[in-house]
Amino acid sequence: MAAPRFDITGIGNAIVDLLVRTDDAFLSHHDMPKGGMKLIDADTATKLTALMVGGQTAAGGSVANSCAVAASLGARAAFLGKVAADDLGLAFGDGMVDMGVHYPTKPLHNGAPTARCLIFVTPDGQRTMNTYLGAGGEFTLDDLDETVIAASAITYLEGYLFDPPAAQLAFAEAVALAKAAGRLTALSLSDPFCVDRHRDGFRRLIAGGVDILFANEAEICSLYQCNEFAEAQAAAARDVKLAVLTRSEAGSVIVQDMNVTKIDAVPTTVVDTTGAGDAYAAGFMTAYAQGRSVEEAGKLGAKAAALAISQIGARPPAEMLWKLIG
Amino acid sequence: MAAPRFDITGIGNAIVDLLVRTDDAFLSHHDMPKGGMKLIDADTATKLTALMVGGQTAAGGSVANSCAVAASLGARAAFLGKVAADDLGLAFGDGMVDMGVHYPTKPLHNGAPTARCLIFVTPDGQRTMNTYLGAGGEFTLDDLDETVIAASAITYLEGYLFDPPAAQLAFAEAVALAKAAGRLTALSLSDPFCVDRHRDGFRRLIAGGVDILFANEAEICSLYQCNEFAEAQAAAARDVKLAVLTRSEAGSVIVQDMNVTKIDAVPTTVVDTTGAGDAYAAGFMTAYAQGRSVEEAGKLGAKAAALAISQIGARPPAEMLWKLIG
Repeated sequence: MAAPRFDITGIGNAIVDLLVRTDDAFLSHHDMPKGGMKLIDADTATKLTALMVGGQTAAGGSVANSCAVAASLGARAAFLGKVAADDLGLAFGDGMVDMGVHYPTKPLHNGAPTARCLIFVTPDGQRTMNTYLGAGGEFTLDDLDETVIAASAITYLEGYLFDPPAAQLAFAEAVALAKAAGRLTALSLSDPFCVDRHRDGFRRLIAGGVDILFANEAEICSLYQCNEFAEAQAAAARDVKLAVLTRSEAGSVIVQDMNVTKIDAVPTTVVDTTGAGDAYAAGFMTAYAQGRSVEEAGKLGAKAAALAISQIGARPPAEMLWKLIG
Repeated sequence: MAAPRFDITGIGNAIVDLLVRTDDAFLSHHDMPKGGMKLIDADTATKLTALMVGGQTAAGGSVANSCAVAASLGARAAFLGKVAADDLGLAFGDGMVDMGVHYPTKPLHNGAPTARCLIFVTPDGQRTMNTYLGAGGEFTLDDLDETVIAASAITYLEGYLFDPPAAQLAFAEAVALAKAAGRLTALSLSDPFCVDRHRDGFRRLIAGGVDILFANEAEICSLYQCNEFAEAQAAAARDVKLAVLTRSEAGSVIVQDMNVTKIDAVPTTVVDTTGAGDAYAAGFMTAYAQGRSVEEAGKLGAKAAALAISQIGARPPAEMLWKLIG
């Protein structure tokens, strides 16, 4: 088998975050419950985007964030995810390529616009989010880059992409392609509500050959419908070769062949928890793909997560991430 | 010592190649000896560039080509080299970043325009080249990115950058920075005429701590003023820890601690020899930085060089390069 060209190839939603500061009156006027997150349709997305002139733009998406962070940690990363042929789509692609992530997916023409998360920040520091999934949900079998998957040590799948049926099919095929090439697959459960919507599908995908499962406490408990973390951990140990379970300030638990490794969280001042799980997965997979032990991988994950939550946004500056390697 | 973030950081001329098809009358009219290469000044460059509308543009430069090829072979690569804040400078940067090469150098403002190689191809297939060094020669100590150099397994210096005195100072400093960080340095002699101009400077740099020397037969013979390759090889063996000497279709010779390893050239149909040495160095350093033997490194170099000369241009398509890894 040939040596891998990439350490990690992520497949996920290609989302651009737009952020503006606003006031409470704006939220009331647009019926946005402060601090909440809701899904919006194309018309609402277009109207709200037009109101966000002068705001900040950042490439986002959970697995896309992991790929960007992994690249800054020294992993060779690629990302597959669908944008439209529009300005936000270009911004997303530039955001990935600037981080050194190979991004070969062709943009969607004559379809939905690029996915975006519209974030309104009120003077009290709260974030009110409106997510439009757009072109990101139109990822299909045709977008699976077989050459890239076959050349990647790990193919990493984003749970959120289970919502669109065509993407779900693409996931099963991605697992098959990676296995055929003798590579590993990983899955992020993304969100406990996402797990609720697709519990059986996720369990089938895991049974069908996911090698590494990433989940936080709420997600793994949702997957196995347990109230106790210990019970969910035991279920994961039976189902998957390597389960990486994160528990915020309680650290993380790595279960491999019934061996349990506990990793402490790295103490830090919390500024913004966005992207903590994405950064942990990035650190873990970077070290693991480079042949290091699960303990070392968990430690790099914990360090990357601590850095992510000590600053605003999901992608810490590259040079700060470099300092974590060693 | 921390693990390296990059396998290879190149420092060299940041040149854009512009290529148009023309006829013999055009060459005569502009006093260009067919098949030759001459250095031109800014005014001539501006005038000739204006005549090249509709031609092809490609990011070039010897060490920049090596970095792009190395990235496609799975190396984590960075490049430091100076462009101007103009359209060609943007094209150069995009060309590097699109290949996955980290390119942090700030463009030059209010100075010379971006370096370019203007290539006129006549109906008989001959290439007549006019090189303008422009902003590429204004690389100074300020452009040395210490964080990147300290985080790179190998810092690779382009001999051509010895022409501008400020860049020569920067080279000495780059070697010192790499050594202080416990990293390796490599030097390409670039061109026998370049060696003629800077023989003593190159020898001092090599004696001062270059770990890996890349040269072809003409260059190493020029460095030691020998007529016989065997004599030059013996001199290199005394001077440098690892000398990698390429001899076109006669293969390559790697001399390390007086051990000599010979690598056969990989047979192929020659289409365009541009970039053969750059591709060899890319393959060699990619494998060597990943801990493989000098023999394996030389074999990857020979495969990359064969691919480079079997197609037009110095940077073979990424997916063709991926197939060489393994």
